[in-house]
Amino acid sequence: MSKRLGRSRELFVLTYGALVAQLCKDYEKDEDVNKHLDRMGYDIGIRLVEDFLARSAVRKCRSYSETVDVIAQVAFKMYLGVTPSVSCSNTTENEFFLMLDKNPLVDFVEELPAGRCSLCYCNLLCGVIRGALEMVHLAAEVTFVQDRLKGDDVTEIGITFSKKLEDKKHKRQK
Amino acid sequence: MSKRLGRSRELFVLTYGALVAQLCKDYEKDEDVNKHLDRMGYDIGIRLVEDFLARSAVRKCRSYSETVDVIAQVAFKMYLGVTPSVSCSNTTENEFFLMLDKNPLVDFVEELPAGRCSLCYCNLLCGVIRGALEMVHLAAEVTFVQDRLKGDDVTEIGITFSKKLEDKKHKRQK
Repeated sequence: MSKRLGRSRELFVLTYGALVAQLCKDYEKDEDVNKHLDRMGYDIGIRLVEDFLARSAVRKCRSYSETVDVIAQVAFKMYLGVTPSVSCSNTTENEFFLMLDKNPLVDFVEELPAGRCSLCYCNLLCGVIRGALEMVHLAAEVTFVQDRLKGDDVTEIGITFSKKLEDKKHKRQK
Repeated sequence: MSKRLGRSRELFVLTYGALVAQLCKDYEKDEDVNKHLDRMGYDIGIRLVEDFLARSAVRKCRSYSETVDVIAQVAFKMYLGVTPSVSCSNTTENEFFLMLDKNPLVDFVEELPAGRCSLCYCNLLCGVIRGALEMVHLAAEVTFVQDRLKGDDVTEIGITFSKKLEDKKHKRQK
């Protein structure tokens, strides 16, 4: 077990495992489980963001890249005890990637459950990020693009912002 | 929101809420939800205890009362950030109560879901305690005897040990 995990995190990680197992019982299709995890995460994100802003005291982000840095360096650190590395797409300015060397949510998971090869085990996290971003008026698509549980070398979450931040700034200045 | 909550605990508490909500969707009867929460907790407890023993470095308990003190003062503190007060039954030597002034698991919960008046919202905790105790060879019944969410003044978990610790000690000395 990772020494990097905070003390209360084991209970969280094991409870999360119970939630995923329950959804796998409930829904036959992996896509349905993924969808539910994302939706649950979204509901959590829209509530968690308030706590995050209050605790972190981060200042208003001026760019997508700043926003993603805050997610990686402050939010992930705060709630999961890890800091993903951030990269951005070379071709678009609104597409970013969080690369997780270590994913605490799968600490007790050796592999995907049998017959669940399309399961995005940690999809709750995507929903949390999406919900939290929406509460600060940033629409984004958040998905796992790579997943160690699926045999990829790393676990990577892609964040694609769907609105130009510039547009919003202009509106606010009117 | 309680300032006493650790940083990663909000995510846990909200995820726990999602789990309870899902079980309420899945099972019509409150007793079935309670049973499932207890069983999930049990599965978690039998895994968590190893982590607990490794981190806490507590020594072998010599009595039920010492065991319950460790649960309250070390385990609850470690995983939930609160320390319940302990009392024991006046009539039997194997019955104890953990009184929670503050229950972090219901931090985001105002009241029980509509029509769910027999739900033991935090029943997972009973299962966790039961599972963990079983792994150190102590059989116990663990249930909520009072619950603020049900209108009681306090939240109280009852632990009734079903084997005499003395018997075990004697066996070991043989």
